[in-house]
Amino acid sequence: MAVPVWSVDPRTGKQRGQAAVEAGTAEVDAAVRAAAGALPALADRGSRARLLRESARLLEEHADEVVAAADAETALGSPRLTGELARTAFQLRTFADEVEDGGFLDVVIDHADPAATPIPRPDLRRYKVPLGVVAVYAASNFPLAFSVPGGDTASALAAGCPVVVKAHPDHPATSELCAGLLRRAAETAGLPAGTVGLVHGFDAGLDLVRHPLVAAAGFTGSVRGGRALYDAAAARPHPIPFHGELGSVNPVVVTAAAAAERAEQIGTGLAGSFTLGTGQFCTKPGLVLVPAGPDGDRLVAAVTGAAGQAPAGVLLDTRMRDAFLKGAAERSALPGVDTPLAPDAGDGLTVRPGYVTASAAELAAPGALDPLLEECFGPLTVIVRYDGAAELAAVLDRVPGSLTATAHLGEREAAAPGGSAAGLLARLAGLAGRVLVNGWPTGVAVTGAQHHGGPYPATTSTSTSVGATAVERWLRPVAYQDTPPALLPAELRDDNPLGLPRRVDGVRG
Amino acid sequence: MAVPVWSVDPRTGKQRGQAAVEAGTAEVDAAVRAAAGALPALADRGSRARLLRESARLLEEHADEVVAAADAETALGSPRLTGELARTAFQLRTFADEVEDGGFLDVVIDHADPAATPIPRPDLRRYKVPLGVVAVYAASNFPLAFSVPGGDTASALAAGCPVVVKAHPDHPATSELCAGLLRRAAETAGLPAGTVGLVHGFDAGLDLVRHPLVAAAGFTGSVRGGRALYDAAAARPHPIPFHGELGSVNPVVVTAAAAAERAEQIGTGLAGSFTLGTGQFCTKPGLVLVPAGPDGDRLVAAVTGAAGQAPAGVLLDTRMRDAFLKGAAERSALPGVDTPLAPDAGDGLTVRPGYVTASAAELAAPGALDPLLEECFGPLTVIVRYDGAAELAAVLDRVPGSLTATAHLGEREAAAPGGSAAGLLARLAGLAGRVLVNGWPTGVAVTGAQHHGGPYPATTSTSTSVGATAVERWLRPVAYQDTPPALLPAELRDDNPLGLPRRVDGVRG
Repeated sequence: MAVPVWSVDPRTGKQRGQAAVEAGTAEVDAAVRAAAGALPALADRGSRARLLRESARLLEEHADEVVAAADAETALGSPRLTGELARTAFQLRTFADEVEDGGFLDVVIDHADPAATPIPRPDLRRYKVPLGVVAVYAASNFPLAFSVPGGDTASALAAGCPVVVKAHPDHPATSELCAGLLRRAAETAGLPAGTVGLVHGFDAGLDLVRHPLVAAAGFTGSVRGGRALYDAAAARPHPIPFHGELGSVNPVVVTAAAAAERAEQIGTGLAGSFTLGTGQFCTKPGLVLVPAGPDGDRLVAAVTGAAGQAPAGVLLDTRMRDAFLKGAAERSALPGVDTPLAPDAGDGLTVRPGYVTASAAELAAPGALDPLLEECFGPLTVIVRYDGAAELAAVLDRVPGSLTATAHLGEREAAAPGGSAAGLLARLAGLAGRVLVNGWPTGVAVTGAQHHGGPYPATTSTSTSVGATAVERWLRPVAYQDTPPALLPAELRDDNPLGLPRRVDGVRG
Repeated sequence: MAVPVWSVDPRTGKQRGQAAVEAGTAEVDAAVRAAAGALPALADRGSRARLLRESARLLEEHADEVVAAADAETALGSPRLTGELARTAFQLRTFADEVEDGGFLDVVIDHADPAATPIPRPDLRRYKVPLGVVAVYAASNFPLAFSVPGGDTASALAAGCPVVVKAHPDHPATSELCAGLLRRAAETAGLPAGTVGLVHGFDAGLDLVRHPLVAAAGFTGSVRGGRALYDAAAARPHPIPFHGELGSVNPVVVTAAAAAERAEQIGTGLAGSFTLGTGQFCTKPGLVLVPAGPDGDRLVAAVTGAAGQAPAGVLLDTRMRDAFLKGAAERSALPGVDTPLAPDAGDGLTVRPGYVTASAAELAAPGALDPLLEECFGPLTVIVRYDGAAELAAVLDRVPGSLTATAHLGEREAAAPGGSAAGLLARLAGLAGRVLVNGWPTGVAVTGAQHHGGPYPATTSTSTSVGATAVERWLRPVAYQDTPPALLPAELRDDNPLGLPRRVDGVRG
């Protein structure tokens, strides 16, 4: 019996209508088999680039419809979603560029060397091939950029891997709409509709990661959900790579010099960053180390001023709202924790942002304050006051792996090579995959040098889910030894008919 | 109470003397902490290159002693071990070259672009940093090249990661000797002795993969042992990458044309490859598809002739010998399986090579013959006779992931682009990480284009354990955003003081 999937308005908590039905084991199997059937057609890089560009074009052509659908299901608002759509289209085109560049194929050619020592060397030519069907687990907080048409899908298609997306239950109608656009793009590119599959339902997600024809998975979501899927992927008879982005507190360190120079500016910036999008970013600054003393006091007062004026907002669903209010209350109730600005319930289903404060001396050792080191999804941050370098270091030793780590430095610190600021950045680089100076981690640029990942639980692998190198997750190398020229893949021929970047006998070109 | 670790002579099965003691939890912890303490010193790439080159030099300087120790514990013989030592030294120097080249740091620099669409872009610079302490699980069959001074160790040190090796119980004295040489090399390079740790004992291996400060693991060995460690790595509170090479049947396909042209040559070559080193290579051809009919019969007869004259050999230990004889007998006893040349016990503790034959029609579906699709470590191969393309395809559909897959082609097939041979190679590329034409998979060149890995159970990840790209396993990316020039790591500065290959604003140079 088909289980309905409802589209829900987070502003009212009411069902808007049925968006889809949950996929049973048979439907998941059918979607995966259809995707596997699309694998040969995706071998053509030109078709992949066309698919990605046409997907971007169709998203933009249907922007009004897509933004309206996403806003109705997420309450993120038209301006934010219009920006997210532009980012998503840009991301699709970025991966089309990467497909055409072909650098990710990592072509390495070593010609035979009968005179090599210690033994003669055969002709060996290596490149990368698609892994197979990729399962994509969509995020709640980005109904476009980390969902059906998002970075996991775009990078997997760029790699030549068909995808089956497990829709997030917070936006099933948006997911159906976007999947339809991607399938139209596939048709235009001459690719099978099975290139992009979509399934709904919790059990469907588990069926998907366990399916023998699924070769890898990408996930963005909670530690609990991501870990359960990671465990299922690792427990398969044939384990598969599971690239999950799970949770991150994104520590921020404000030095004494920075606080002395720019207390109000930093406090206001922090308030803007942790309340942005009602605090529903994986890169939200969730643990902020502020010096004890008057400069830090001014900074904290500025947070209160700015965050106190931030508008109340609707979270993505009522379950998240309940979890946020419970998490905020639990943190406020911890011994020694103060709540200068209480995050709490606003009108209707809204919540108001807030923060708590604690002392670094108490957080420096395991104990009652440990929940402050866990992510709380929503507009809450934890400000930890530290007194001197030793307390700062002790807290940093306890911060879990994060997507980002930020330093706010004084002017002279920022200009002094080899000083304490350099040491601080090195320490932060040990905690996170992206280190920022004098900025805020919300906002993740889609570019070649981006890295959106970090030590567990930030991600379950060493890869990135944003930026050009995200494509590397869906490939595996194959080397051809002593293969006659007539039978070599075009990518590996001496005459380089595809014009690929490559390394030949050690020389890059 | 210290549990002794004995060095055993596989030619007699007798203890030669005590080589070491098993490491308890405290000793494993001490080795890992010492290794973690060496991490900062290894940040200097010059020191790493010196360590690798000096390790190679010391191995060569002590070649007689090392080869004698390894031969006494493995019975692999001086010529083979002398070659393995040369290969190991070459491998260490290859990674020193890679360290100096620095391409593996994958430097990508994207300058800020305030005019970028859809939104302004910050300055982002990415490179790769060492993961931390690497656990290396040494193999039985390569006491040097896949053991203490082997590829996992060399690539981890090249990446800047200290290692703790879990010695293989088949060659504890050789392991101690080599670890001593590497520690001397570390001292010469100005690095702490903890850079290379060594522990013995089954429980120590489990303690190691579970240690919180161990950041990744490399393994070469059996499916059972590797999977147990993989599962332990995945079940950690903070899972870590586990790069295991577990098992491989290394399919070989002989086409009808190849058999018609070179039956005797191929049969003799096969016998040489599967009996080499008494069949103890992870790339041993273990499943050979030979056409039915007279040409195939000639090929099989040539195998009998050549393998029947191959000398009896001693396996690495008596447990392996028992497992080999049991595995060979079990395969021979399967319904419909013939044993033209029985692998069996020779004089003393030796075994004699042999092979069994089966029909593709019977192996094409799950059933009693399934054990033929599993690796049998030692000088045994399985010859499967196929009648036509459909039977060949049906068996290939059942072949598990392998390190290598080989095609023997006729002269015209090898010269015809887009024909059936191209289709066959594409199919083989789906099964393995290295595809060979008209060659034998034993022998794995250490070079940039090598890939020694393949779909599970060949390896537990998409990485290689041989060749220059093996270093990629031990790194993770870190991106710096809007970081003042004075605080950037030297690798990421605009003036490129280290002369690294990099991609700047999309342009490689």
